[in-house]
Amino acid sequence: MTAAPAAGSVGVVETRYLDLPHAVALDCGRELHPIRVAYETYGVLSPQRDNAILVCHALSGDAHAAGFSTEAAQRSTRDGFAADDRDGEVGKGLGWWDGMIGPGKAFDTDCYFVISTNLLGGCRGTTGPESPDPATGRPYGPDFPVITVADMVRTERALLDELGIERLAAVAGGSLGGMQAFAWAIMFPDQVDAVVAVASTHALSPQGVAWNAIAREAIMRDPAWQGGRYYGTADAPTAGLGVARMIGHITYLSAASLDEKFGRRLQFAQDVRYTITEPEFAVESYLRHQADSFVSRFDANTYLYTSRALTYFDLAREHGRGSLARALEGVRARTLLISFSSDWLYPPSGARDIEQALRGLGKPGELHVIDAPYGHDCFLLEEAQQTPIIRRFLGELA
Amino acid sequence: MTAAPAAGSVGVVETRYLDLPHAVALDCGRELHPIRVAYETYGVLSPQRDNAILVCHALSGDAHAAGFSTEAAQRSTRDGFAADDRDGEVGKGLGWWDGMIGPGKAFDTDCYFVISTNLLGGCRGTTGPESPDPATGRPYGPDFPVITVADMVRTERALLDELGIERLAAVAGGSLGGMQAFAWAIMFPDQVDAVVAVASTHALSPQGVAWNAIAREAIMRDPAWQGGRYYGTADAPTAGLGVARMIGHITYLSAASLDEKFGRRLQFAQDVRYTITEPEFAVESYLRHQADSFVSRFDANTYLYTSRALTYFDLAREHGRGSLARALEGVRARTLLISFSSDWLYPPSGARDIEQALRGLGKPGELHVIDAPYGHDCFLLEEAQQTPIIRRFLGELA
Repeated sequence: MTAAPAAGSVGVVETRYLDLPHAVALDCGRELHPIRVAYETYGVLSPQRDNAILVCHALSGDAHAAGFSTEAAQRSTRDGFAADDRDGEVGKGLGWWDGMIGPGKAFDTDCYFVISTNLLGGCRGTTGPESPDPATGRPYGPDFPVITVADMVRTERALLDELGIERLAAVAGGSLGGMQAFAWAIMFPDQVDAVVAVASTHALSPQGVAWNAIAREAIMRDPAWQGGRYYGTADAPTAGLGVARMIGHITYLSAASLDEKFGRRLQFAQDVRYTITEPEFAVESYLRHQADSFVSRFDANTYLYTSRALTYFDLAREHGRGSLARALEGVRARTLLISFSSDWLYPPSGARDIEQALRGLGKPGELHVIDAPYGHDCFLLEEAQQTPIIRRFLGELA
Repeated sequence: MTAAPAAGSVGVVETRYLDLPHAVALDCGRELHPIRVAYETYGVLSPQRDNAILVCHALSGDAHAAGFSTEAAQRSTRDGFAADDRDGEVGKGLGWWDGMIGPGKAFDTDCYFVISTNLLGGCRGTTGPESPDPATGRPYGPDFPVITVADMVRTERALLDELGIERLAAVAGGSLGGMQAFAWAIMFPDQVDAVVAVASTHALSPQGVAWNAIAREAIMRDPAWQGGRYYGTADAPTAGLGVARMIGHITYLSAASLDEKFGRRLQFAQDVRYTITEPEFAVESYLRHQADSFVSRFDANTYLYTSRALTYFDLAREHGRGSLARALEGVRARTLLISFSSDWLYPPSGARDIEQALRGLGKPGELHVIDAPYGHDCFLLEEAQQTPIIRRFLGELA
């Protein structure tokens, strides 16, 4: 009953786990140990170890970026975004960037060794708030340290050390994944040949800060959150996490794509039923479905920590004493930026800021704004338009 | 310690209350009785009774549209929108459209008799979910009938009957208030000379439907909502209502105005404090303040019912068997539409649909899209640009 891998697929994959030998020093001043990292790899590492590409996921992703996973098929990981509707049954069990990673795809596993990890603080195998705190033996909950994108990158660096990979041919990702790619290029300039940042930015816009804050409020105001100590209790903040997911979902889509997909179509009949509590419009029913599906697979505390990290992320503040140009001064990687015309959560202006700063510094960088209607979700959906750009860019590096 | 009325003010006003003598027949099939309506009036009704303008409020407004109210000063009614920040102490006690209603203002009380009512289902004096259900003697709560914009208009019509006003020189309002104005022109075509609809539409966009649904979910998922029967208990869904308000608030503002107002400014220091639970960014703190302020003055069930009504509102479906032109066929009022370039919740396209439909029918209608940066809130803030347009339009009628 499981779907067969499509042509160009990396095939059936399994997530692996590695325990880092050393503590990771975090921005907040704390050291975290132990850390387990969940990761997957696709393709073959060259004898020279010079063909590794690290792929970083967004807020609700995980290490399963490509291929077919039996475990993931039971969870339908791709329901994270609107992608699930398009993929339907076929999508179940496929990695979140399966259309981009595989033989002949944008990240061509015939040439590259692609590594994908679950980020620090995650709830899909990498150490996070749900993991046991060695000090107590119980889940960290709110005692988990507040992490940053830089901390995620330090953890990824430590994993690659263990895998024997010093240099990366590229670091790639969409949204929060693209933030990690930039942090890599700044923190480890001698170890990154290229950055591929899709639908990303140097700092979330104030409106994005607000949406993330509201989503976190929805979780924390749910009494079942219990100050973050809900693990092992009979309750969990599914109500609040569901609202957070609904908010996120609408910010990932464009107004035009909602028009096209749902319009004002009623759910059941030609006329309204006069109900406050039940969905009347198709989009209302869809939102409930998205929320229910998400809360069954995602941890509310991981949502809080990850949302906070991507909100903090600010290249200029963290690395340039307020100047984006200063933050990028040390970058040696070639940079490819892809944005989408209809993405209002990570609008093209953020990528344009980076491209202009790089140009001002005389550094190689290119920006492609793809005209596509699906909002921020384009980075998961618009494979056909991204693929030739990325293949050409990576080919020029080789 | 109370602020003095500004020049051009209608002065100190008091909300009055009227009990309708008859039941109002609602779209849902039920009849509602008794109904009390809260209203204010400004200016003097002419002996010919031909200078009455009905002003209709938006989701979180009330009957106090103009002048200074001691009672309202204690509540700061204008915190409904960003307007409160601009007005500060001076704004306390002023009506929500005080800049638009008064001697020499857009709705000139030297010429017109302006009536403003709290809408049906409201929580500021007009019968709503908080009112006693005659069947039980206890507050209606979820037994309050599901109401529509047309039901609001029927209630307003019944109030005007009692006030001895048959014809209206104009019906005016912003957002949901504009929806009521259109419903008036369609339902009572012989009694409305003009419509002034600001930042409004013939039907909320699917994205707007989604935002409203998420806001309602936030309220209904709060356990303190108790299925809507929280009156008289020790609890109320302030957590959920606060989240609903935060969502609404961000949809009322443009991304550019958030950039200008807050940027990514940190709340307390030059650097972050690494906290999940406390506000770090100024916009996060602002949102909490807005939520706290709102829940102290607004009823969660009224939010649910009003949000549902404005979501249902659809001129084509309700009055034109799917055709906007057919819905507008019987309109005799001259129509003035004002939209704002940065309003993404009620974008100019909605008003443009109406203007084009009217033009196709050979009916008088004009649309002005004002270039202004404050999003949907412009209808409360951009008095200077609206005033000459409205004064000229009303003057041509006289």
